[in-house]
Order: sequence, then structure tokens, then C-alpha cells
Amino acid sequence: MTESRPRLRLFVPHPLAEGVAVALDRDQTHYVASVMRAALGETALLFNGRDGEWAARIDGLAKAGAALVPLRQTRPQAPEPDLWLLSAPLKKDRTDLVVEKSAELGVSLLWPVFTRRTNSGRVNVERLRAHLIEASEQCERLTVPRLEEPAPLDRILAAWPDGRVLLFLDEAGGGMPLAEAAAVGPAALLVGPEGGFDPDERRLLLSKPFVRPVGLGPRILRAETAAIAALAIWQAVVGDGRSPPLR
Amino acid sequence: MTESRPRLRLFVPHPLAEGVAVALDRDQTHYVASVMRAALGETALLFNGRDGEWAARIDGLAKAGAALVPLRQTRPQAPEPDLWLLSAPLKKDRTDLVVEKSAELGVSLLWPVFTRRTNSGRVNVERLRAHLIEASEQCERLTVPRLEEPAPLDRILAAWPDGRVLLFLDEAGGGMPLAEAAAVGPAALLVGPEGGFDPDERRLLLSKPFVRPVGLGPRILRAETAAIAALAIWQAVVGDGRSPPLR
Repeated sequence: MTESRPRLRLFVPHPLAEGVAVALDRDQTHYVASVMRAALGETALLFNGRDGEWAARIDGLAKAGAALVPLRQTRPQAPEPDLWLLSAPLKKDRTDLVVEKSAELGVSLLWPVFTRRTNSGRVNVERLRAHLIEASEQCERLTVPRLEEPAPLDRILAAWPDGRVLLFLDEAGGGMPLAEAAAVGPAALLVGPEGGFDPDERRLLLSKPFVRPVGLGPRILRAETAAIAALAIWQAVVGDGRSPPLR
Repeated sequence: MTESRPRLRLFVPHPLAEGVAVALDRDQTHYVASVMRAALGETALLFNGRDGEWAARIDGLAKAGAALVPLRQTRPQAPEPDLWLLSAPLKKDRTDLVVEKSAELGVSLLWPVFTRRTNSGRVNVERLRAHLIEASEQCERLTVPRLEEPAPLDRILAAWPDGRVLLFLDEAGGGMPLAEAAAVGPAALLVGPEGGFDPDERRLLLSKPFVRPVGLGPRILRAETAAIAALAIWQAVVGDGRSPPLR
């Protein structure tokens, strides 16, 4: 492309097809019109997780909603790594970090999990979803990670789907190094709260045939560091870490 | 060990030997006495980067300085991975994150590097050092990463030490996947600022025989994400990611 890259990239729920106008919601319109001060005729990139990425022209900027018309597909939809992250809620800023990095590091599904030592009893799902969307827009993925309804660990384990291995980041040790254990097909990473899992939870986890304890080396990592490091390692070893950058 | 693990772990500059009392400085004394409300006789762990880790007894708690007496070595000093991180300063909270995670992920040396697109002209070295110490205390390493004097990229490259490969996280692509390029012996990772390196800097980097461009996959990562991911991958693939946890 000789033209410069659009500065706006937006996730929309609508189908994307040439010439079929898309209306932005109130928040996105505010962002586009007031924060970014976009002009009529400016090009933005749109994606919806299904129809690839499209260059679209801003055709309307009313206060109630902007209208964009997709002009041409800039990237086709493509398969993405199948990696879940189950993560216990942490303090607000540390949770925000895990959420943002999950999107950047290519998680397909994020599942907040309540454990015995989880301090934060409430999870603001709408806030997490907004973070996932924003980070997905910025890192140029073609999807937004699915956000699963927060649930207690034992309930998640009781209904665990067939065919997916749960790589349990076990601070108590004894697990294989993640880099060696990662090649298992569809996977989920499980990271506990700051205080770790309690002994009963550990026993429950280790009793499940789909659970594999894994380790990240000798240092004691904070929970969010463990989550981010594990995602990076999984992508590098068995995910799309070998794919070239998009541009 | 049957006794519970001490809740205090402190880095001190002094030599550590059985029975030889160590005085804490004013800040550490405040932390121990006022923040943690430690009592006389309580055990703390001490390390200095040279003499391993020691269990020490709090023998004095005067306002001007606490005194601790090392009783027995709990861990011998051991070799650690030789990994440098050269990182352009970012916004304050993002820099803090890189600094904290550098310590947790086992960096031996952290070097703030000024590039053309670096926004933050000043670096508060004392603040970074305090963060490195705190994170090192918490993650239970036996050293604190060395903090090099911030310097411009061209000057660092002009005086680059023999025998160390600079793995340059090149957003422009073309580099090998980091997981494949990591096995080079003593290494340094170089991460640019949010705006990336400018074309002249990229040319300069690629002209150096000790520089290898590397990639982290298809998504566009924020600078601090790239730094943290690269450290985690390096440790997992050629560092100490295969070592078991400390306890």
C-alpha cells in the first residue's frame, strides 16, 4: 500500500460487506468524532471477527451515530490459535493488565475464575469486555477474545469440555516446564490468584485427567506475570509466534 | 523446612556472614518497623547478590536503623542466566511494568536506551533502581539486576561488548522467530519505544554484525508487552525456564 495506514481501527458487531453501511454505537461515535476528531471521508478499518478487515469511509457523523461504508477488504478472515486463559481476578490494575495482554498475545477465550483465595469477589464483565475490544483493535487481530461468564473453579472443572488440556501453572512445583508441555493441541492456561491455590484446590486439579501441572522456572512470579509469560511462551512454542508480523 | 517462611526478604549491600550484624538504611528500617510492624527477634531473609540468602534475626529496631544478625545461609549463591534488556523509556506506568517484570523474569542487566522516537527524555534512575530491588526481593532471586546508565542507542551500539548478541525486536518484520533465534549464548534484547525505531536507526542496527532482528508473531504488540513476552520466551527456551521452582 502506498497510502498511509488509517489511524482508526474499530471492532463492530455488524456484518461487513462492500457498500453496506455500518452504524457505530454512541460510545464509538464519541471516540471517532470527539476524541479522534475524524472528518467525513476519512478511512477507518473495521473488523467483526468473521468477515476479515475492511477499509471503510466515514459517510456520516451525527451525534447519535456515525455511519461508515466498507469499500474493500484489506485482510481476509484467517484461523487464529486456539488458546484459552483461565485467570483468577486480581487487583483492578493487575486484572486490567492480564486482560489487555490476553488480547495482544492472542488468547481466543478469557475466563475469570473464582478460587478460594481470590480476593476480588466481583468482576465487572462489561469493563473487561471493553478492554478486550480496545486491545484487539490496537494489536490488529481480526477477532476479539470471547469473554466467558466468571465462575468458581470447581464448577468449571466439573463441566470441562472434552479434548482440551488444562495447563495448570503450579507454583508448588513438580510440573513440566511449560515450553515442553505446551504441545497438546487445544489448550487452556490456568493462573491462580496472588495467594496461589489452596491445597484442596491443588488436589482437585491434579485429580483431573485433563489437567497438566506446568512450571515457569525458579523465580516466584506475580500472578499477572505468570499469565503474561505463559501466554507468550505458548504462542512462541506452539502458537503463531513463528508467523511474520502483519506489516 | 517445617517453620513457616519469613514474610520479610530484603536486599542489603553489606557482606553476609554468620553472626556479623547488618544495619538497614533509613528507608528499609521504616519499611520493616512501621509498614510491616516487625518485632525484635523476628526472622528476615537477606541477600546481597554475592553471599547467597541468609536467615537473620532482628536484633535492634532504632529509628535511625534496624540491626539484623545473619544466623544461617538458607540458599547458596548460584549462577543466573546472562540476559540483558535494553529498553526505551515509555510512559511512567509502562516503564514501571517493564522494570518490575525484568527483575521477575530474570534479567541480569537493564539498560534504558534513548531513541529518536523516545518520548520520555528523563529517566529517574533511583526510582528504577528501587523498583528493581523491590521486585527482586519479592520474586526471590539472589541478585538485583544491574541498572546501566541511560544512554542513546548509537552510543551504546558504538561501544558494544564483544561476544554478546543483540536480539533486536524488529516490528518491521523479516527477523527470525525469537524462539528459534534465542540460542546465541550471552544475549541482550532490544525493545524500542511505542512509536518503534525510525528507518535510520533500523539501518544502523541491521548494519552491525552483533545484531539479529527477531520477531514475536503476527500481532502488533505494545512496547512493554514485547519486552515482557521476549524475556519470558528467552528464559523458557534457553534460560532457566526449565529449572524447578525454589520451593
